[in-house]
Amino acid sequence: MKTTALIMAGGKGERFWPKSRLNLPKQFLSLTDDGKTMIQLTVERINPLVDMKDIYISTNENYRALVREQLPEIPEENILCEPIGRNTAPCIGLGAVHAAKKNEEAVMIVLPSDHLIKSNEIFIDTFKEAIKIAESGPNLVTVGITPNYPETGYGYIKYSSDSKNGNGVAVEKFVEKPDLETAKSYLEDGHYLWNSGMFVWSTKTILEQFKKYMPSTYEGLLKIKDAVGQADYTEVLNKEFPLLESQSVDYGIMEKAENIFTLAGNFGWDDVGSWLAVGRIKKNDENHNCIAGNVVSINTSDCVIQGQDKLIATVGLKDMIVVDTDDAILISSKEHAGEIKQVLAALREQGKTQYL
Amino acid sequence: MKTTALIMAGGKGERFWPKSRLNLPKQFLSLTDDGKTMIQLTVERINPLVDMKDIYISTNENYRALVREQLPEIPEENILCEPIGRNTAPCIGLGAVHAAKKNEEAVMIVLPSDHLIKSNEIFIDTFKEAIKIAESGPNLVTVGITPNYPETGYGYIKYSSDSKNGNGVAVEKFVEKPDLETAKSYLEDGHYLWNSGMFVWSTKTILEQFKKYMPSTYEGLLKIKDAVGQADYTEVLNKEFPLLESQSVDYGIMEKAENIFTLAGNFGWDDVGSWLAVGRIKKNDENHNCIAGNVVSINTSDCVIQGQDKLIATVGLKDMIVVDTDDAILISSKEHAGEIKQVLAALREQGKTQYL
Repeated sequence: MKTTALIMAGGKGERFWPKSRLNLPKQFLSLTDDGKTMIQLTVERINPLVDMKDIYISTNENYRALVREQLPEIPEENILCEPIGRNTAPCIGLGAVHAAKKNEEAVMIVLPSDHLIKSNEIFIDTFKEAIKIAESGPNLVTVGITPNYPETGYGYIKYSSDSKNGNGVAVEKFVEKPDLETAKSYLEDGHYLWNSGMFVWSTKTILEQFKKYMPSTYEGLLKIKDAVGQADYTEVLNKEFPLLESQSVDYGIMEKAENIFTLAGNFGWDDVGSWLAVGRIKKNDENHNCIAGNVVSINTSDCVIQGQDKLIATVGLKDMIVVDTDDAILISSKEHAGEIKQVLAALREQGKTQYL
Repeated sequence: MKTTALIMAGGKGERFWPKSRLNLPKQFLSLTDDGKTMIQLTVERINPLVDMKDIYISTNENYRALVREQLPEIPEENILCEPIGRNTAPCIGLGAVHAAKKNEEAVMIVLPSDHLIKSNEIFIDTFKEAIKIAESGPNLVTVGITPNYPETGYGYIKYSSDSKNGNGVAVEKFVEKPDLETAKSYLEDGHYLWNSGMFVWSTKTILEQFKKYMPSTYEGLLKIKDAVGQADYTEVLNKEFPLLESQSVDYGIMEKAENIFTLAGNFGWDDVGSWLAVGRIKKNDENHNCIAGNVVSINTSDCVIQGQDKLIATVGLKDMIVVDTDDAILISSKEHAGEIKQVLAALREQGKTQYL
């Protein structure tokens, strides 16, 4: 079966403000020391399993030029621009009908565009396994992550060791973000994985699920499928896509479907969820600081400081995040980093949209 | 007796980096909401007691242009440029010989150029009293500040209520910066004032003290006095001044002299010793922040944030100092603000002298 991939790249990356902006969100930034952007790394990583012409990028019109610029090998027609964000289910459905239009029998890998992986080799081996399971029947495969601490910011996947399919194990249920006590119990239980939003299935199987669990969305997707490659494609897309139910694939399909298997991805996964992650990913100095740019630090430890040309002098800082850009600088405690979104809300409210 | 004033304006103001720079130190900055610089406020404050032509500014060649620009009413010949910094005793001696050259019988008020005063009216009344004492005999008058907390960063003046001169009381001794326990005992004792570095005496009296306690400095000062107004003044100054003993007036004269009186200055004094002081001086918002410039603050309290054009976004900050300038930004905890000098040392070491 032909293997295809859908890379979801429509996010705004607000937690990486002020580097991540409406016109240059996180997936188009380089956050690693190699200078490659997140989406370039994602494409490069999956390319051993999928030809460039079978990789689809789901994004929106604002980022089309960025995708073309950063991924010139991806065919223009594979850049799928959603007229409006409708969460992951319609996004995946759109990718599925495009892939299915070209190859009625195709495996479809779904990947976020803004995660980092330590071992590409183990990553590829894991997805080879996942593809086998997806090809062997009407199975939905999700690649989970073995948790190593009780994270409360992710959903979890509970699996049962009793039912296997190759190296995959049957998923018993998907669970929402837990509180700390619950997360601890999951870790202790040993049958829970983090839900990373990475999936493998055949286009046929996933479209069957849409038909069963999201029938009106399925109807809309079929209309779009008919128009793929036609002159009226954009017109149909702009008419039909906004009518699709705004829903996550987890809630709309995965929590209801059967034949779901999971593989534990032990390839060193990081969703780079915030500036805190940069401190984990990049090299740290002897004071556990992750510092770049023109910086002088006195009595400063456990900080992420991303400077540019302007001199940043820090004195007596601990557990802080400092990110400088041409027009804005963020200074945040690590503890309150989740409140960066409130900065963006305040900027919107004050009409300072040039900083968004 | 003619009243003159010497305003000491040679300091580097390192604790106000990055606004205060080698080429624009604290005394030439505006730190208040009225837009006037520290030295302009100082001159304006004393002017009701001293004619502009009798105000001397002690500084160095680097700041001559700044003094002329900010204080155009001060005669050019009253700008006294030290060839090299030799601490306060030679600085005061130089002012004394200039004032004495013009008026053999003159009262001399000595003031720092970078302090703030809340009530100019009470300030003037206090100095009128001080002038009376200075005119009434060979007395040295220092204006102290009634302490309202056990500050360990200032020297103290111990006075005796037994011996009075007008409203002035006799100084028993000068004491160095105390530790916290000692400072507390001073506060409890009730006979201690902060040593603010403000003095009043006649030029004749202070020069007599030099003769008695710093005789070689006195000899040098006399040579300079002879040259005042002469063609070879600069030549003589450059030769003699560097030979003067580098010494504070407190240690060199005040700790040894007799006939010292003090007045308690209750005019709302602030030496604006660091960025922390700006939080005291300027208006604070409801979260006890002192914020200027283009700033968005989320969950931020008890901070001093001095922005410019660039957007500064703060999240989860408490007790912090943030000061932005065109080429450098300081981010410091209030607790460690004293270590700003280490930033300057690091910059010197790294050869980044453009930021000093």
